[in-house]
Amino acid sequence: MDQSPLLAGGSQKSCEPVIPPQTGEALAMIIITRPDATEEQIGHIVSRIRDWGLKAEVSRGEMRVVIGVIGPEDKIREKPLGVFPGVESVTPVLKPYKLVSYEFRGTSSKVKIGDVVLGNKDVVIMAGPCSVENEGQITTIANSIRKAGARILRGGAFKPRTSPYSFQGLGKVGLQLLAEARKESGLPIITEVMDTKDLDLVCEYADCLQVGARNMQNFSLLREVGRTRLPVMLKRGMAASIKDLLMSAEYILSEGNFNVLLCERGIRTFETMTRNTLDLNAVPVLKSETHLPIVVDPTHGIGIRQFVPAMALAAVAAGADSIMVEVHNAPELAKSDGEQSLLPAEFVDLVGRIRAVAEAVGRAV
Amino acid sequence: MDQSPLLAGGSQKSCEPVIPPQTGEALAMIIITRPDATEEQIGHIVSRIRDWGLKAEVSRGEMRVVIGVIGPEDKIREKPLGVFPGVESVTPVLKPYKLVSYEFRGTSSKVKIGDVVLGNKDVVIMAGPCSVENEGQITTIANSIRKAGARILRGGAFKPRTSPYSFQGLGKVGLQLLAEARKESGLPIITEVMDTKDLDLVCEYADCLQVGARNMQNFSLLREVGRTRLPVMLKRGMAASIKDLLMSAEYILSEGNFNVLLCERGIRTFETMTRNTLDLNAVPVLKSETHLPIVVDPTHGIGIRQFVPAMALAAVAAGADSIMVEVHNAPELAKSDGEQSLLPAEFVDLVGRIRAVAEAVGRAV
Amino acid sequence: MDQSPLLAGGSQKSCEPVIPPQTGEALAMIIITRPDATEEQIGHIVSRIRDWGLKAEVSRGEMRVVIGVIGPEDKIREKPLGVFPGVESVTPVLKPYKLVSYEFRGTSSKVKIGDVVLGNKDVVIMAGPCSVENEGQITTIANSIRKAGARILRGGAFKPRTSPYSFQGLGKVGLQLLAEARKESGLPIITEVMDTKDLDLVCEYADCLQVGARNMQNFSLLREVGRTRLPVMLKRGMAASIKDLLMSAEYILSEGNFNVLLCERGIRTFETMTRNTLDLNAVPVLKSETHLPIVVDPTHGIGIRQFVPAMALAAVAAGADSIMVEVHNAPELAKSDGEQSLLPAEFVDLVGRIRAVAEAVGRAV
Amino acid sequence: MDQSPLLAGGSQKSCEPVIPPQTGEALAMIIITRPDATEEQIGHIVSRIRDWGLKAEVSRGEMRVVIGVIGPEDKIREKPLGVFPGVESVTPVLKPYKLVSYEFRGTSSKVKIGDVVLGNKDVVIMAGPCSVENEGQITTIANSIRKAGARILRGGAFKPRTSPYSFQGLGKVGLQLLAEARKESGLPIITEVMDTKDLDLVCEYADCLQVGARNMQNFSLLREVGRTRLPVMLKRGMAASIKDLLMSAEYILSEGNFNVLLCERGIRTFETMTRNTLDLNAVPVLKSETHLPIVVDPTHGIGIRQFVPAMALAAVAAGADSIMVEVHNAPELAKSDGEQSLLPAEFVDLVGRIRAVAEAVGRAV
Repeated sequence: MDQSPLLAGGSQKSCEPVIPPQTGEALAMIIITRPDATEEQIGHIVSRIRDWGLKAEVSRGEMRVVIGVIGPEDKIREKPLGVFPGVESVTPVLKPYKLVSYEFRGTSSKVKIGDVVLGNKDVVIMAGPCSVENEGQITTIANSIRKAGARILRGGAFKPRTSPYSFQGLGKVGLQLLAEARKESGLPIITEVMDTKDLDLVCEYADCLQVGARNMQNFSLLREVGRTRLPVMLKRGMAASIKDLLMSAEYILSEGNFNVLLCERGIRTFETMTRNTLDLNAVPVLKSETHLPIVVDPTHGIGIRQFVPAMALAAVAAGADSIMVEVHNAPELAKSDGEQSLLPAEFVDLVGRIRAVAEAVGRAV
Repeated sequence: MDQSPLLAGGSQKSCEPVIPPQTGEALAMIIITRPDATEEQIGHIVSRIRDWGLKAEVSRGEMRVVIGVIGPEDKIREKPLGVFPGVESVTPVLKPYKLVSYEFRGTSSKVKIGDVVLGNKDVVIMAGPCSVENEGQITTIANSIRKAGARILRGGAFKPRTSPYSFQGLGKVGLQLLAEARKESGLPIITEVMDTKDLDLVCEYADCLQVGARNMQNFSLLREVGRTRLPVMLKRGMAASIKDLLMSAEYILSEGNFNVLLCERGIRTFETMTRNTLDLNAVPVLKSETHLPIVVDPTHGIGIRQFVPAMALAAVAAGADSIMVEVHNAPELAKSDGEQSLLPAEFVDLVGRIRAVAEAVGRAV
Repeated sequence: MDQSPLLAGGSQKSCEPVIPPQTGEALAMIIITRPDATEEQIGHIVSRIRDWGLKAEVSRGEMRVVIGVIGPEDKIREKPLGVFPGVESVTPVLKPYKLVSYEFRGTSSKVKIGDVVLGNKDVVIMAGPCSVENEGQITTIANSIRKAGARILRGGAFKPRTSPYSFQGLGKVGLQLLAEARKESGLPIITEVMDTKDLDLVCEYADCLQVGARNMQNFSLLREVGRTRLPVMLKRGMAASIKDLLMSAEYILSEGNFNVLLCERGIRTFETMTRNTLDLNAVPVLKSETHLPIVVDPTHGIGIRQFVPAMALAAVAAGADSIMVEVHNAPELAKSDGEQSLLPAEFVDLVGRIRAVAEAVGRAV
Repeated sequence: MDQSPLLAGGSQKSCEPVIPPQTGEALAMIIITRPDATEEQIGHIVSRIRDWGLKAEVSRGEMRVVIGVIGPEDKIREKPLGVFPGVESVTPVLKPYKLVSYEFRGTSSKVKIGDVVLGNKDVVIMAGPCSVENEGQITTIANSIRKAGARILRGGAFKPRTSPYSFQGLGKVGLQLLAEARKESGLPIITEVMDTKDLDLVCEYADCLQVGARNMQNFSLLREVGRTRLPVMLKRGMAASIKDLLMSAEYILSEGNFNVLLCERGIRTFETMTRNTLDLNAVPVLKSETHLPIVVDPTHGIGIRQFVPAMALAAVAAGADSIMVEVHNAPELAKSDGEQSLLPAEFVDLVGRIRAVAEAVGRAV
């Protein structure tokens, strides 16, 4: 297995958590006291810190005292420093994520799905229907998007639906149809896993696992996908900050699976004219904070078919490594998300436009 | 079993989904066309609707046409009406939730946890630590909150933590310690289940299952807790609308478990001075929309110990049926959320104040 | 004039800005460098700080360097510390507001509107229609709410309306009608001023000026109301953090007018079932951060008539000093906000319930 | 004057509001009743509607009744339909904006600032410092950005600052320095007006007025700028929906000034790693909803210098007609927003990259 550039020569399948590096004697936390904090309270904080085997450096201002806490980061993070009487605020100096941070590797990672590598110069396009519905549908779409230039096939067999009365996906049959479409089209497949109990099944069929926005903080699922050999695309939750997304990815990497893609797919805001608010700011921020490749899903990010192409182009211009779009050959018959899926002809047109923008920003398709 | 007022005489344990009532020939959806919609597009929409065996009523305005779609609601909801060329908007007439809706029962439900009934005149107080840490801790707290007036013990054995490096809970040992504390104190226990694979284990110990905010749209878990005999407290997700919360509860009820509590615990907004924004508006709205009892968690809703009591009182005044607060006997030693946990003495004081407000609004403690 | 407890014996009318207190040699700002910051970059930051006549204290961690900046706060705030190459974050130690901060006075302020004092033990109820519409309407409502227990009359003469085609208020005539209603009912009046050019006119009639949510950061208007002798109620903007609200109030106080009330009226979130999300968390936070009295407007905070009473009670339980509610004698004829205005009979009922909750939390009506 | 394509041959300076077109007998509003609405309540609604001279069309479903209200839109909008007992929801069929709507013109508008036309094939770049600070600064920057390819100079003379203690701009002197820089560089200037009382002064100097995000719903100011002859750039408020932005623009157009640009500059969300969340979804949505040209301000939209270029490119790819970026020759000395201003050399580089992306999407620079 050489999928993981980080674990070259080793096994990706590891149940042993990677031991995060200890950061030794760094200044790790800054405590600021309240203006009405008493000397006794300040003394109590300092002696507690020292009891824990840590160092405390005290600087006195006119109204407030600043206490720097020095020692191994992990040990310090566990301490409930905010709890002490007299404390106004506690500011961490160090970032809470490690394995996902850019500085951990100092270079960008590449992730391989089947034969397709994400994180290279070329922008990889993933496409396909929201749900797998039947053999004709998925194979037709797979062939059509491959010809247009897509390199990975998406399609849901297990569907997270807001209503229990909506179509919930074909389950195992859907996975089989995806495998069929892979055989026909040659495209590797990405599909969502929603529950740890379905993981083995999904792993039998998928080339890349998707953890959906609603499960971004399903920590059990994150741990379990972290123990598989498969690449994982983690979608940002609707209320998840960029930091939360990185922390969730940290769960996967900490279990030994470094083949992780992060996907921006829109956050929830007060705006109601669009389904979500696609946060393209996250693209350059993530490219700076982490070594992991970044995917953007403009389909869910805006949720209205006619506007998806504009946002796909914007995502490429912002620096995304990959674009995921929904395509359906008959949206009027789609069992889910027909409103936002492109028609095959629209997708062909979009790929050409993505190529032009990709080249304009020094990349390719 | 008489826990469920809806299923009196029947079994709560049912794997058969309840069949939602068909609503027959109601006007279920309103389509508004774009000003530039052509006659051909309008004709296409209408004929598609009729092909599906539904009725379409067309009203013409100066700039737009309004098409009412009439027929069985469930059938209509599945149709991708927004997909048709020429459509500007699609507005559902009917609400998407049924079993949870107030009109489904026409009266409030009561839910029984051990011997404690929620949904009666008295406001039920649940309290306990964030995490179960050791026997001394949980039993001491259980006894202390029982004396103060709490009627249900909370405590986490499986903890959803943002960081993989934080304390993740004691798991099975935590459940055993909770059971021990129940025996000592006589209080029934509520504890979180995070994964379908842990459900049988948690069900062995818990009197009430908690589905946490991060799992509010973990639909696999919702279905599975819907198949148990235990009451379930469903916490609102950080980005979940009131409607989303009701739809998630609908998953549980649709599997046959009507013993569901809804818990408001704060949503995520731009405000950073508090951990979350406690949305007390949700209390009267939910009391009007659903028959299920409403719990408020002011601890997570504001996240700062000294302000928890004010929000607990506000929640009671707003009409909550139950209040859940974190209490810890030694917050400085807590393994999680020490900053926001009340001290036992503060809790005693709070119960007295809750009682006064409860009586002022015609309730009791 | 003795309205201002802060300026007893002095004049409230002062165009001279109050000079904010200098905080001397406090540690005022903490700079954290990036892991890849060079020694040259760090040296550049430190020498710049010293060039400005400030002190820099450097602490070295393993990956990052922490530089404390010491000196007069105001001078430091103006410096663009985040601009330097190699800087990761800049954290202020001191709060940006001074005159409004609780620690500035060390006790709560009282604000007098006519003969009514806000900030005392009793919770003051303000009520009245959204807009002044005609003499019969405003005088009828004034008399009716006075009898019910309201102590201040609200009513808009200048109305900020989202649409230019909506009723914009009666302007000067509206003010005259308000003055008439004051004479009839004996209630002092609060009314909105939207523009500096209307300020003199509004000051002729009003007992308290209202600065609306949409003008919370209209800094010209804030300065000008800060130069009047009248008390000012400043409403929180829809996207304003608690800190922003305090900074806007600081504008008013810095011009010499300390008679300021802060009003929580709901913020904008993703929730669409209610008009706004009433952030009652802001009540205890503000009571702790500032000496100014706090008003809550549950009418705009939830925006649905039947739910206004629950939120009014919750606001009192959370610690509000005053409640402002819309009352209309004929909501079906109201020119604005009829949907959310209470009927006079509903208001009578609400006052009784507010009294009960106020007493339960140690206050009165 | 031929700046306004809508008012060709006429004067742009008009204090007479444009009369919005009457839409006659359209179905304008849809009322849905509650399941528990009585026949008496439904009858009351219908008879009220008829009393107002409007038509009511009643459709009966199983649980709810739908009442279509037919008549002149403006008349209907003023009626408080949501107020009636028994009403569950009121849905407008027609959009609330008219003059700004794309369908009002059926083609895109062009707006001329000095000799520069916005809304053509070429993407217009506006650049300059946050604040005008002194003559050397503004003239140096003006010359430098003109050489790089910018066509309009921005710079603030009146600055809306969160803190009253921050630099508030040079006022009239700032305007004079801008005029000087215009003379030197040949670039037309855009600058902010914050208050109606400064409007005449600003109009003497500016080629285009800017209404800032914090004043987007300062309706007095909107009306007044609508009465000038100058083009106006209206920035989206931090909590303003796209619809709110369009309604605010409608104020300006309704006063006779059709030379309006809309500027997306980031909204406020829960994300804290960036200053705002740049909502590029708004670009294609606005291009579809309105005929007005769209500007994007990536500087405020992300607020971190190193990430501004990525967002500028994304904005062009999304379809923006113009990009506004902050440039400062010495950010370390800037009196405001140094952290987010590009250096002149970075700006030169950015213009080249914008040109490449503009050409890739069929435009030019």
